[in-house]
Amino acid sequence: MAGREARRGLTGELVAEFAGTMVLILFGAGVVAQVVAAQLGDHDSIAWAWGIGVMLGVYVAGRTTGAHLNPAVTVGFALFRGFPWPKVLPYVVAQTAGAFVAALIVRWNYSEVLAMADPGRTLKTQIVFSTLPGNGTLPVDMWGGLRDQIIGTAILLFVIFALSDTANMAPSANLGPFVIGLLVVGIGMSFGTDAGYAINPARDFGPRLASFLTGYGGAWRDQYGELYFWVPIVGPLIGGVLGAGLYQACIARFLPQGEDRDTVKPSD
Amino acid sequence: MAGREARRGLTGELVAEFAGTMVLILFGAGVVAQVVAAQLGDHDSIAWAWGIGVMLGVYVAGRTTGAHLNPAVTVGFALFRGFPWPKVLPYVVAQTAGAFVAALIVRWNYSEVLAMADPGRTLKTQIVFSTLPGNGTLPVDMWGGLRDQIIGTAILLFVIFALSDTANMAPSANLGPFVIGLLVVGIGMSFGTDAGYAINPARDFGPRLASFLTGYGGAWRDQYGELYFWVPIVGPLIGGVLGAGLYQACIARFLPQGEDRDTVKPSD
Amino acid sequence: MAGREARRGLTGELVAEFAGTMVLILFGAGVVAQVVAAQLGDHDSIAWAWGIGVMLGVYVAGRTTGAHLNPAVTVGFALFRGFPWPKVLPYVVAQTAGAFVAALIVRWNYSEVLAMADPGRTLKTQIVFSTLPGNGTLPVDMWGGLRDQIIGTAILLFVIFALSDTANMAPSANLGPFVIGLLVVGIGMSFGTDAGYAINPARDFGPRLASFLTGYGGAWRDQYGELYFWVPIVGPLIGGVLGAGLYQACIARFLPQGEDRDTVKPSD
Amino acid sequence: MAGREARRGLTGELVAEFAGTMVLILFGAGVVAQVVAAQLGDHDSIAWAWGIGVMLGVYVAGRTTGAHLNPAVTVGFALFRGFPWPKVLPYVVAQTAGAFVAALIVRWNYSEVLAMADPGRTLKTQIVFSTLPGNGTLPVDMWGGLRDQIIGTAILLFVIFALSDTANMAPSANLGPFVIGLLVVGIGMSFGTDAGYAINPARDFGPRLASFLTGYGGAWRDQYGELYFWVPIVGPLIGGVLGAGLYQACIARFLPQGEDRDTVKPSD
Repeated sequence: MAGREARRGLTGELVAEFAGTMVLILFGAGVVAQVVAAQLGDHDSIAWAWGIGVMLGVYVAGRTTGAHLNPAVTVGFALFRGFPWPKVLPYVVAQTAGAFVAALIVRWNYSEVLAMADPGRTLKTQIVFSTLPGNGTLPVDMWGGLRDQIIGTAILLFVIFALSDTANMAPSANLGPFVIGLLVVGIGMSFGTDAGYAINPARDFGPRLASFLTGYGGAWRDQYGELYFWVPIVGPLIGGVLGAGLYQACIARFLPQGEDRDTVKPSD
Repeated sequence: MAGREARRGLTGELVAEFAGTMVLILFGAGVVAQVVAAQLGDHDSIAWAWGIGVMLGVYVAGRTTGAHLNPAVTVGFALFRGFPWPKVLPYVVAQTAGAFVAALIVRWNYSEVLAMADPGRTLKTQIVFSTLPGNGTLPVDMWGGLRDQIIGTAILLFVIFALSDTANMAPSANLGPFVIGLLVVGIGMSFGTDAGYAINPARDFGPRLASFLTGYGGAWRDQYGELYFWVPIVGPLIGGVLGAGLYQACIARFLPQGEDRDTVKPSD
Repeated sequence: MAGREARRGLTGELVAEFAGTMVLILFGAGVVAQVVAAQLGDHDSIAWAWGIGVMLGVYVAGRTTGAHLNPAVTVGFALFRGFPWPKVLPYVVAQTAGAFVAALIVRWNYSEVLAMADPGRTLKTQIVFSTLPGNGTLPVDMWGGLRDQIIGTAILLFVIFALSDTANMAPSANLGPFVIGLLVVGIGMSFGTDAGYAINPARDFGPRLASFLTGYGGAWRDQYGELYFWVPIVGPLIGGVLGAGLYQACIARFLPQGEDRDTVKPSD
Repeated sequence: MAGREARRGLTGELVAEFAGTMVLILFGAGVVAQVVAAQLGDHDSIAWAWGIGVMLGVYVAGRTTGAHLNPAVTVGFALFRGFPWPKVLPYVVAQTAGAFVAALIVRWNYSEVLAMADPGRTLKTQIVFSTLPGNGTLPVDMWGGLRDQIIGTAILLFVIFALSDTANMAPSANLGPFVIGLLVVGIGMSFGTDAGYAINPARDFGPRLASFLTGYGGAWRDQYGELYFWVPIVGPLIGGVLGAGLYQACIARFLPQGEDRDTVKPSD
């Protein structure tokens, strides 16, 4: 019985991670398609809609799993906040699958305008789905992208750890997801130049695969012809551990003992 | 006596749905008029002001009815959350009437700039009131618009069901309407290309009728000459049922039993 | 003693209304100066910064007076919510004086860029301080401006009455001022075309006087040479009564009896 | 023991001020680099991302120190709210060091695009790190910048004192940092013309030093060749005292006695 309940519990968690990440990518890939292919909006629209997508994905999955929606977050929580390691891989697969399905939906819904703007399915609209160094146009190479992804995800995790630490000043009234959304808006506005702020391996790999399977043959390489897909996977994983660890070392250990340092409970 | 009280109760509810939807369309049609006719603002202004309009409409009607303001929401609540079916049609009529009256007010207030920008009352400013496939200019046809309206409204209802599910992580402190407003901002930025994100039959049909009655002879057809007015009615109704059902199947059934899964109470 | 305390009380209230309206106009006139004279930002910046200014002004005066900051609000509260009539005129004077002083500060701080952009002190930068029909360029006349001010202020008061009605769904956690700020952002984006959304006699008259006294000889007339200064005074007063009355008639009377229908208490 | 605990306490506070200010400048310098060097975004992006950076910095340090992140705030709290004077200098050093390190990270991460946009390391990209009168292009001189910094920081402190005064209408649910972020957004949109709204000596001096040490030889002077670096130090200190004092004199002394007028407790 207990095993069955646990399996049912894990199923619910994986579906929630799947659905939350799907919501995130529906908005995230959707806004880039709208800006790049239909020219409605600009870079700030991208920053805002990604942030809103993250916020809404967190609201969808929040009560069930705390809404990681990002392998870098899952690994950070496993390393520093006791999230069970055996669940890490299933979570990562569910997140990536959610991002994959969302990208297919955006691919389908924007098929006409993508075909109009980029009939050859080049990097110009590849960027709707996955990231490129310097967004495909600026003079940043693979290593610059890697550096940026480490820095950007370190900031993401450092601040997420602050915002979800009830021993610190975590927003209450169930408004944590809103502030996390603003964090992503800020990263988009301040750290979107060098590598399109993937800061999330699932967010990048799932849609990259979806675009490859739907006609984007060049999905795995950057504008210099280098294999690039690994950068927004490896960079965020390194950066996430770095940022989460720094939070624990710099802030958490000075906060009052005996208080709950775990993530915000959904009922807070 | 009880019947009289109930009638009085229903009257209050219908007036609230009327007023809430009116507020929503005052901002929604107002901002498009300002952007399209007076060229103050851009696509992002439209996204923000529609979201703010939804938020404010929800605050106006929130305590009385929970603020559906959208036939797709009313049908979703009837199907999955026990909203009484006999009230569905009156609610839909009240919502549509509120949208109609608001569109007339915007039509009147912007009469000078609309006449300046589009003396022939063509589709160019028709779009102030009702939607067109590809916003009248992009290569999207009626069927693309229908697909988009199903997808967009499925996202809307899926997330609304999450945000109003107290067994999930619903915002408290009476700030649910704010987050719902951000949801609509996000849909505008990410799913506004193919069909102008009507995602609400009352929002589209009421103002379309108002524009038809005030000189827009072509209000029922799209830029290809096809009858289009049914798309932002049928699409949202299908998508809404789909999104609400998916939320129930994917998220709600895994959340703790015995807790209230109904909409957020105004006092929360 | 009691009289002395009451006088002290009234002094505190008037200072709070003065300071709150001053904060509002520092941001409001400041952003228009920045956009019009220095060309930093655009119409949306104006909408956002006005909204933020209103929000911050309400936080400054909120506990002391409830933060009217607008004669139309003061009159609406006197008519429908028992605000004492003898305080109306002092409040209006304090609000106008706060707006006047703030405009002088902006006038001084932006003296270089105003002189650069508009050495003749014409209507081009007059609009930094006070409003014009059609913002000085669109084909809207005095009567169109009056119509717009009635409509815009009716919307403002209707929604403010909803947001401050604890029998309705008023935001708690002291976040009402934030939502009121968003309301003003929305009005700026949706109803800023015909008359620059004064929607507040003090906001318009105080800065108009300040600009007149500092070299703007044409401050009282519009681009057609008509006396215009009375429009953003009379229009908001009419519209405010209309909007507040409609809220009472349409929404408030259907809400549960016996509950407090007064403004939100600062401690809520 | 007690001395050791106190030292440990002070260490935690200084690390928190360091980290909070670092987060603030990562976003602040990051967004200007992105806008100026990579041309992604515009002036409003700068206003939003600075505000978000302040908000997130406050969340990081909020529980530990109340999150000053600004010497003008620290001095204001020492003068009017009993913050211990012996801690003022250590706090200021920690804040400046955090800003310095953040600027180095941005300098490194944006090295390619900075080199592309401004190979000579002129004032054009100096502005990524520190401020200039009239942002380097408008006809405002050193004294205009000083005036502006006094005014802008007076507004900042006046409103911060309101937002953190629990005898007034301080936001609760741990959402004070969000509203403070909006305050900085508003200052950026309304008071960013004359001197780039440093309004914080640490924010300006730390990154100025970082840029000087990494190749910006002209970091200490403005476009007229005048020594300018002292203006965003002296101006904010004067303005901060002015604004905080005005709040105490105009608002705080009329608020109910016996209530806590100190800063919001993190647990509120």
